Amino acid sequence: MDAIPGTLPGKNAALAARYGDDAAPAAGPWNETIAQLLQHRSVRAYLPTALPTGTLETLVAAAQSAATSSNLQTWSVVSVTDPAVRAKLAAIAGGQKHIEQCPLYLVWLADLSRLARIAEAEGRVLEGLPFLEPFLVASIDAALAAQNAVVAAESLGLSTLYIGAMRNDVVAVAELLGLPPGVAGVFGLCVGYADPAAPSEVKPRLPQDGVLHHGTYRIGDEVARRAAYDERMGAFSRRNEMQADTWTERVLSRIASVKALRGRDRLKAALRRIGFPLQ
Amino acid sequence: MDAIPGTLPGKNAALAARYGDDAAPAAGPWNETIAQLLQHRSVRAYLPTALPTGTLETLVAAAQSAATSSNLQTWSVVSVTDPAVRAKLAAIAGGQKHIEQCPLYLVWLADLSRLARIAEAEGRVLEGLPFLEPFLVASIDAALAAQNAVVAAESLGLSTLYIGAMRNDVVAVAELLGLPPGVAGVFGLCVGYADPAAPSEVKPRLPQDGVLHHGTYRIGDEVARRAAYDERMGAFSRRNEMQADTWTERVLSRIASVKALRGRDRLKAALRRIGFPLQ
Repeated sequence: MDAIPGTLPGKNAALAARYGDDAAPAAGPWNETIAQLLQHRSVRAYLPTALPTGTLETLVAAAQSAATSSNLQTWSVVSVTDPAVRAKLAAIAGGQKHIEQCPLYLVWLADLSRLARIAEAEGRVLEGLPFLEPFLVASIDAALAAQNAVVAAESLGLSTLYIGAMRNDVVAVAELLGLPPGVAGVFGLCVGYADPAAPSEVKPRLPQDGVLHHGTYRIGDEVARRAAYDERMGAFSRRNEMQADTWTERVLSRIASVKALRGRDRLKAALRRIGFPLQ
Repeated sequence: MDAIPGTLPGKNAALAARYGDDAAPAAGPWNETIAQLLQHRSVRAYLPTALPTGTLETLVAAAQSAATSSNLQTWSVVSVTDPAVRAKLAAIAGGQKHIEQCPLYLVWLADLSRLARIAEAEGRVLEGLPFLEPFLVASIDAALAAQNAVVAAESLGLSTLYIGAMRNDVVAVAELLGLPPGVAGVFGLCVGYADPAAPSEVKPRLPQDGVLHHGTYRIGDEVARRAAYDERMGAFSRRNEMQADTWTERVLSRIASVKALRGRDRLKAALRRIGFPLQ
């Protein structure tokens, strides 16, 4: 099973790229779909090449095929094409130019407004709607849907990038996209053909024993594990000409201060403004 | 591209199964991976057949290959094998027997404790950690990871079922799995071979114009769209010997009352008890 036809690496090479030569898990069954999943990398540089007709509809069909809690289907998605709106969304995201440059930009929505409209049309009250739980369901279901779209896109030779920074200002995003109350942009997604002039490498992750627990949660020798991962990520950063900080430094600085949340410290208040009481 | 080798339906058949003959979108590019995504169905009856050696590690490698916000990797997963613990989790989920019966049961965790331990080891304070945002990041990243595991599992001929009902009592789940503060079970996942004696059919979803928006959010003729979908879901329910309620009735009753949330009306308080201040 080690030789995969086409451009996908074999099992051992794929696991080594994801975990490092000395930390690859003893994975079992393997196929081309799994090889493709292992090959994922986030891409920030896109060619202007348009996508084939119907690509958006194919991706949304894949997205809608993901599981959805109690078949409630509490998510929606907006495809943004207007360059002026794209520029404003890029600004909200702290100047991420790829939002303006990618041929397809999607904003995935936690959408409780559809249920609210059904209740109104049927003359019913939904006591459960104002709670944290439905917002969380909608956000998780949007994520399951979007990930199916990502898998579909990558199977077509496209690349993607999630944009969590839509949450920097969910009120402004709602205004730009004309969202009714009870709808929030939870993240964006760039889709397009990766610019071959800016190749990207598969990013190493924590070893499996850092995230996979058997029966109960066991921390284990986390300090040694982190030291090895810092070293691996350091080598990755040097190969890819990124800043030389360790993973430890990066994750700490990302949430060290309230300011580092880039407006998302106000997320709860902002969600309440656009129709999620989060009781 | 309409004839797919093997057991997967072609493009038109796959779209008709997902949307109904008269509501299939004009989807574009297609391949076997996308056909497999469209084929997803939730499975509640599993054979006791064990999974091949290394399947869990393959699924987790796929999961870790999903995007993760700022590479923070704020999720973990527990594989639960102890029958007594499985029985308790099934009870928390309102008596879902498949949690006890499936060969692999995973609980996916929003895990901020790893970052907290790093900060402690490094003598640093993480001002951003107590906010709603990191919990949401962790839940979304757990969902992206789990969906990759689902795609990998289905590519291997396995079936799956998400269990949102772990959120009925996140405090009890945390105790059962020995979770440290700052770790919450956000959903479970059954994995196994579907029992062929209980076949399941692809469930129709809302038509694409109900969830896909171009530029700005447009509601359109939602009443007519819902009537058509209620009819389609009614036929599906009759074919699958389910209760005859319409989709409208089902979604309204699922969140009509606080009681219908099955304990998740207390989710916010429960999360606070296990280390998520949700500021």
